[in-house]
Amino acid sequence: MKYGFADRVRYFDSSAVRDILKVVNKGDVISFAGGLPDEGLFPVEAVDKAFHKAICSGNKALQYAETEGLLALKELLAQRMLKKGIEKDPNDILITSGSQQAIDLFSRVMFNPGDVILTENPTYLAALQVFSSYETTVIPIDSDEDGMIEEDLEDKIKTYKPKCIYVVPTFSNPGGKVWSQQRREMLLALAEKYHVVIMEDDPYGDIQFDPASMPDSLAAMDKGNEYVIYTSTISKTVVPAMRLGWITGPHQIVRLIAQAKQAADLHTNSISQHALVHLLNDYDLDAHIETIRATYKERMLIMKRCLDEAKIEGLTYLEPKGGMFFWVTLPDYMNPEALLPIAVENGVAFVPGQPFYVDKKKRSTMRLNFTNSSPELIEEGMKRLTAVLSTVHI
Amino acid sequence: MKYGFADRVRYFDSSAVRDILKVVNKGDVISFAGGLPDEGLFPVEAVDKAFHKAICSGNKALQYAETEGLLALKELLAQRMLKKGIEKDPNDILITSGSQQAIDLFSRVMFNPGDVILTENPTYLAALQVFSSYETTVIPIDSDEDGMIEEDLEDKIKTYKPKCIYVVPTFSNPGGKVWSQQRREMLLALAEKYHVVIMEDDPYGDIQFDPASMPDSLAAMDKGNEYVIYTSTISKTVVPAMRLGWITGPHQIVRLIAQAKQAADLHTNSISQHALVHLLNDYDLDAHIETIRATYKERMLIMKRCLDEAKIEGLTYLEPKGGMFFWVTLPDYMNPEALLPIAVENGVAFVPGQPFYVDKKKRSTMRLNFTNSSPELIEEGMKRLTAVLSTVHI
Repeated sequence: MKYGFADRVRYFDSSAVRDILKVVNKGDVISFAGGLPDEGLFPVEAVDKAFHKAICSGNKALQYAETEGLLALKELLAQRMLKKGIEKDPNDILITSGSQQAIDLFSRVMFNPGDVILTENPTYLAALQVFSSYETTVIPIDSDEDGMIEEDLEDKIKTYKPKCIYVVPTFSNPGGKVWSQQRREMLLALAEKYHVVIMEDDPYGDIQFDPASMPDSLAAMDKGNEYVIYTSTISKTVVPAMRLGWITGPHQIVRLIAQAKQAADLHTNSISQHALVHLLNDYDLDAHIETIRATYKERMLIMKRCLDEAKIEGLTYLEPKGGMFFWVTLPDYMNPEALLPIAVENGVAFVPGQPFYVDKKKRSTMRLNFTNSSPELIEEGMKRLTAVLSTVHI
Repeated sequence: MKYGFADRVRYFDSSAVRDILKVVNKGDVISFAGGLPDEGLFPVEAVDKAFHKAICSGNKALQYAETEGLLALKELLAQRMLKKGIEKDPNDILITSGSQQAIDLFSRVMFNPGDVILTENPTYLAALQVFSSYETTVIPIDSDEDGMIEEDLEDKIKTYKPKCIYVVPTFSNPGGKVWSQQRREMLLALAEKYHVVIMEDDPYGDIQFDPASMPDSLAAMDKGNEYVIYTSTISKTVVPAMRLGWITGPHQIVRLIAQAKQAADLHTNSISQHALVHLLNDYDLDAHIETIRATYKERMLIMKRCLDEAKIEGLTYLEPKGGMFFWVTLPDYMNPEALLPIAVENGVAFVPGQPFYVDKKKRSTMRLNFTNSSPELIEEGMKRLTAVLSTVHI
C-alpha cells in the first residue's frame, strides 16, 4: 500500500545524529564523533540508591503523575538555578524528557509553517532538525567568537520579523564558545526592542573549565520573565539515560507547553523524577560536577596539545571554555566528508561540520568530542587523525 | 509582552484529563473519576530489583541510547505479542514514552491540518486531544456493542476519504466493550478496499475478565503488515511511572516515526527500558496479570451489583468484558455536569461523558472507574453516588 504522510515528513532530516551514533559504536574505531559524556564518570552508586529510594518510597511514586512534573523536583531545580542568578517560580518550570523535548514542545506551541527563527551558524543540529520538522525557516546570523554580530542581527530581525532567536550562548555545540556579557546584553535589548522571544539552550552550562569568568545567563538577565525561555538538562552532569530536562520562562508559554506535553506523552518518567529528587538531596552533585569539569578540561587540553603539535597548516580552532567539543576549521581544500571514511579506515572518527550549518552546505570544518575517550585514547586517536589530515589531501 | 503562538494552540484542549486528575486527589472524596490502575497491586519488589539490575549492569546502560529502543526489549515484546497471534519483526517495533506518545508520533507523521480521522464515539479523550492538536477533522462512526456499523463506516470512508480509522477495539475507553470478530474482519476489509490505515490502540488488552472468548487483534489479522499500526503499553500491567509503551506496524510508517521520535526526545528513558527487560526475564508477569484480572473483575462485579440494586429507572450500562471502566447512560433529563459538584459534595466523583464525544456536546452519560478503589470503597462510593442519582433530579 502507498501511504499518504503529513507534509512535514518531507522536512524530516534523515537523521545525521543517528548516523553519527552508528559510527560511534564500531569496534576498534576511536570515536570523537559522538556527543556522549564519559560513562566512566557516571555516579552509578548514587543513581542506584536514588532509584531504590524512589521505587520504595510508596506505591504512589509509581502511579500516573502530573504533566508539569514533580513539585519537589521543580523546587530543587529552582534552587539550583537561583545560584546562577536565574530566579524562577517552580510553577513556571516544566519537567521534560531531556532538553530535546523542551525544544520540541516549545516549537510546537510557537511555530507555524513559514515562521522565521534566527540562529547562530553553525548550531545544535538536533535543534535544526526540530525547527525543520515544523516547516519553519531558519535564518543564520553572522557571529564571531563573542556571539552574534549586532548589526546583522538587527537587520535580520527587521527584515524577517522572526518568532524566535535560538541560541546556545554558553559552550555552544559545536563551537564550544561563550558569548560575552556585552553581546548577551545586546541580544536581550534587541529582543525587547522588537518583541522577539529568545530560546536559551543551556545543556553545557555546568561543564565550565574556568568558573571565574562566566557571564550571566540570559534567563538571569530577563528580570521581567518575559523574553527568555530557558532549557537545561541533567544528561551531561548525572546520566543521559534518566532523560530529564526542564524548561522555564514566561508563564503563558510554559502553560501552553504543559498542554502540548499532556498530548505528547502525559508526563515525564516519574521514577526518574523521584530518583533525581533523592539524588539532589542525598548526593553532592556539585562536587561531582567539579570532577567532571576537571576530567574534561584535562582531556580538552590533551586534544589541544595534539592539534597544536601536529602543526597542520591552515588548521584553526578556538579553545573551548567548557562543554564537550572542539570545532576545527580545516584548510579550504579539505573535504571532511571525503576524509571521514579514510579516517575510519585508519581507526578514528569525527563529525564533518556540514549538518551543523543552517544551509547544510559542505564546509571545511569538523567537530571533535573530547569527553568520551580516555587521555590515552585521545592521544592515540589524535595521532591517527592528524596523520590522516597531514597526508591525505582531499 | 504579547506572544504570537502557533495556530495549533487554538485547538489545544484545556485539558479535561488534568481536571479529572485534580478531582481525584481531593481528600475524602471516593473517586471513580480517574483512569488509574490500583497502586496497591504494583509489583514494587520486582520493579525495584529490575531497576537495580539495570543500573548496575554496566555504565553503558546509563548512556544515550538508540532512538528506536533497546533491541532486547523489542524482542521480548515481539515474543509477547506473538502469543496473541501478532507476528512482528522486532525492527518494526519502536519504544515510546507510553502509548500516548505513540498516538502523538503517529499523528505527527500522518496528518496535515484538515485530514480526516474516523473514530468510535465516545472514544479515548486524550487521543481526541492529540488529533485536535494536529488540526485534523474527526468524524464519528455509528457503533453498537459489537463495534462500528459497516454501512455508516463505508459511507463515511467514501464521503470523507479519511487518512486513518482510530479504534480501541478491546475493552474500549470509556465503553469497556469488545468488538466482535465479524466486525473486526469488516473493518479490516474496508481498510484494504479503500486503502485506509487503522490505528489499533490496545492499552487494556491484557485486562480481560473472560479469557476464553477473545477475538483476534486487528494487528494479528493484518497478515501483510500493511494496514494496521498497533500500540500498547505496560502502564496498566506493570507501572505507569515507567512510561513505556510501543508502536508497531508497516515498516515505512515505523521508520518515519523513528525520525519524529528523534526530534521529539532522542529516545525513551533507557533505564526503564533495561529494567523492563530484566523484569520480563526474571518475573512472572503473566501470573501478575492474572492477579490484576481477578482483582479488577471482582471490583467490576461489585460496582455492577451496586448499580443493579439501586434500580434507577432509565439508567443503563453494558457489563465491561475487561478494562477499567463502566460507561453508564443516565436518564435523558439528567445532567452529569450539574450532578458532579453535588456528587463531590456528597463524597464521590465520576467523569461526565462529554469530553469522550467527538462533538463535545453534553449527554446523559458518565464514566466510572472501578480499578482504583477497594471493594469497601466501591460499596461506599456507589452508595453515595446512587443516593445522589436517586434523589437529585437535574
